[in-house]
Amino acid sequence: MSPETPADARRVLDRCDELAAVSSSATGVERVHLSPEHARANAIAADWMAQAGLRTWCDQAGNQWGRLEGREPGLPALVLGSHLDTVTDAGRYDGILGVLSAIEVARRLAPRAGELPFALELVAFSDEEGTRFSTALTGSSAVAGTWHEDWWERTDRDGVTVRQAAEAFGLDPSRIGEAAREPQDLVGYLELHIEQGPQLEAAGRALGVVASIAGARRFTGRVVGEARHAGGTPYPKRRDALVGAGEVVLAVERLAVELDGIATVGRLQAFPGGVNVVPGLVEFSLDVRAEHDADRDALVEAITAHARAACARRGLGLELTETHRAAGVYCDAELTASVVAGIAATGDHDPLRTWSRAGHDAMAIAAITPVAMVFVRCEDGISHAPTEAVTLPDVAAGIDALEAAVLDVAARRS
Amino acid sequence: MSPETPADARRVLDRCDELAAVSSSATGVERVHLSPEHARANAIAADWMAQAGLRTWCDQAGNQWGRLEGREPGLPALVLGSHLDTVTDAGRYDGILGVLSAIEVARRLAPRAGELPFALELVAFSDEEGTRFSTALTGSSAVAGTWHEDWWERTDRDGVTVRQAAEAFGLDPSRIGEAAREPQDLVGYLELHIEQGPQLEAAGRALGVVASIAGARRFTGRVVGEARHAGGTPYPKRRDALVGAGEVVLAVERLAVELDGIATVGRLQAFPGGVNVVPGLVEFSLDVRAEHDADRDALVEAITAHARAACARRGLGLELTETHRAAGVYCDAELTASVVAGIAATGDHDPLRTWSRAGHDAMAIAAITPVAMVFVRCEDGISHAPTEAVTLPDVAAGIDALEAAVLDVAARRS
Repeated sequence: MSPETPADARRVLDRCDELAAVSSSATGVERVHLSPEHARANAIAADWMAQAGLRTWCDQAGNQWGRLEGREPGLPALVLGSHLDTVTDAGRYDGILGVLSAIEVARRLAPRAGELPFALELVAFSDEEGTRFSTALTGSSAVAGTWHEDWWERTDRDGVTVRQAAEAFGLDPSRIGEAAREPQDLVGYLELHIEQGPQLEAAGRALGVVASIAGARRFTGRVVGEARHAGGTPYPKRRDALVGAGEVVLAVERLAVELDGIATVGRLQAFPGGVNVVPGLVEFSLDVRAEHDADRDALVEAITAHARAACARRGLGLELTETHRAAGVYCDAELTASVVAGIAATGDHDPLRTWSRAGHDAMAIAAITPVAMVFVRCEDGISHAPTEAVTLPDVAAGIDALEAAVLDVAARRS
Repeated sequence: MSPETPADARRVLDRCDELAAVSSSATGVERVHLSPEHARANAIAADWMAQAGLRTWCDQAGNQWGRLEGREPGLPALVLGSHLDTVTDAGRYDGILGVLSAIEVARRLAPRAGELPFALELVAFSDEEGTRFSTALTGSSAVAGTWHEDWWERTDRDGVTVRQAAEAFGLDPSRIGEAAREPQDLVGYLELHIEQGPQLEAAGRALGVVASIAGARRFTGRVVGEARHAGGTPYPKRRDALVGAGEVVLAVERLAVELDGIATVGRLQAFPGGVNVVPGLVEFSLDVRAEHDADRDALVEAITAHARAACARRGLGLELTETHRAAGVYCDAELTASVVAGIAATGDHDPLRTWSRAGHDAMAIAAITPVAMVFVRCEDGISHAPTEAVTLPDVAAGIDALEAAVLDVAARRS
């Protein structure tokens, strides 16, 4: 462990706390895409990057960048980063820990950046979670040049489109293409992230190396019945959208377990929502994952077939619209070898290899450059909740491993 | 049928359309307790009452009244009425038809009110549905002197209390007691209402007489689990509040059918509501009814036991709080005889007798005076939906029957 590591890790944890206060919610952490809190978090991160010696800019997708030139100006860049946006009622480490650890690594390497055979860049992606617009990975997709034009018309709960929100944020939608990076300008992308699962804790390891990242498919669903009086409508005349949706929710869990995948209905609301009205409409979300894309797609098919049959039996309509589809990604072997070397530098010479059940910006970036990831142990595997927790020694190990991985990449290219 | 009846019925239907436009929703009818739309509907109804020759006032519970003196001033009153508030995305006849039909009856009787052995009063109750504050029958309860002090602190979705809303409406909560009426000042209460069920249509009858009104019990429920990452959390570690709530919703329907009652989850929402977050909390409503209170209570017990067991199996908490409990009410025999005589005057000499699966203000008023009800056929039994529909001849028959019932009460007391 570097002599300065505990202080660096302490600074990272303190900054995680500072960013947690940049929230649209008085009772928890919520920082969504293109919000005033997003702008504030970017400004704070830019300041920290500048203090570490980096030149900073915000791109047309709302991603915050910093750059340290290598042994000559204009070299291709090795990019370190993660995201600063959060879910609703979030924890304080998911994404944020990766950005802040990268800033520490850059701060340490800045004095000898002139020896590096590449530029070192940091990125804080703007929209990994997709909380506000039912999108995901749009910030990193813009960087990868895979922005979808139809994303502009996606709306939040208040009917605000991505285009309107981007303009209000000070971005120019017609210039979104400027956020895209060229493969020849990049060496690779390294992301440190909390595990968001319990495997490292179970294995007694602080860090792990990620072999692959599962690709999620996401849907918005609507069960359509008929709103009627809850007292006067006899059961044979009811077409209760909520009872139908209840069958769908139970089938989603049962099929995911049976088919060894992961499927979740995270959002669900019944309408019109009167205590004495049979629900005529239910809106919900569906998120489906598996280690391999083919297994995930088979699970989607099974869920769709069961849901359609359950709704048809009740005279209910079912609409499922795919809102997000990310292919699973295998991490780059060479860059992953540098991550293994980085973890080895912390004393763990045979790090646990795992696959990520959660999606990450690395998936989008893999379209243009090699990617690799290091996982940091989190308490009880909890994430997307206020109780997300990491330890100071684990964060210190993460910073050391990330720095050592960068130096390993440099050594391999020198 | 009186010669003027079709014109009167036409006016009632036109006025139902006019009130339907007094809505907080641009796309449907929604007029909730103590809202600006409530005030506007009261003002319109007061104007119509005044045009019919009545003295009008709004009481401290927001109920709109009108009064026509009988053969001497200050006689006890026979009250005709129903409510003007609605559910969300409502129809235009539930409650409203009863108020507007009563105005027609008063208009017809005004020229010979001096012959009546009682005063004739009209009332448009303010909060039958309970849409805004998860209350119900609070307007008529205030009149019956059964207002609950804890209702003042009930909140709407925006956290506004009943007390705050009442004050904003121009009412004085400390004077709620003034809305209460004394039994000796009342002769009885007659309410005309759409059936909200399909029995009259199935029997080919325009009107029906109500033997009893089922008493509902209502609850707000919370299933408490743990919000976590939808990808990283293995199934054995999940405590998904929505899957538990799905089991509850299905059990509610199954047990209601098995036990020959009626039970409905009308409102349900999962929190925090992230597409990639296992729901940690579900909030829902539960409404339970049966012809007899004991059967209803047995159904509540069965639902509660099954829901607790289902949640316990999943490590979930279950909280159920009763928000409303109305005892079933049997209509008064003598006043009901007048309703039967009223319907007979329209040509149906053996009217269909039914029990009301829906709650009505008559239930609350029964605490202080005899009550009776006449039902008007509605299309396909649909209510609490924009497709609520009645026919002109049925409305004409309803007005005639209500007028004849009033005259029958007068004849019995003369």
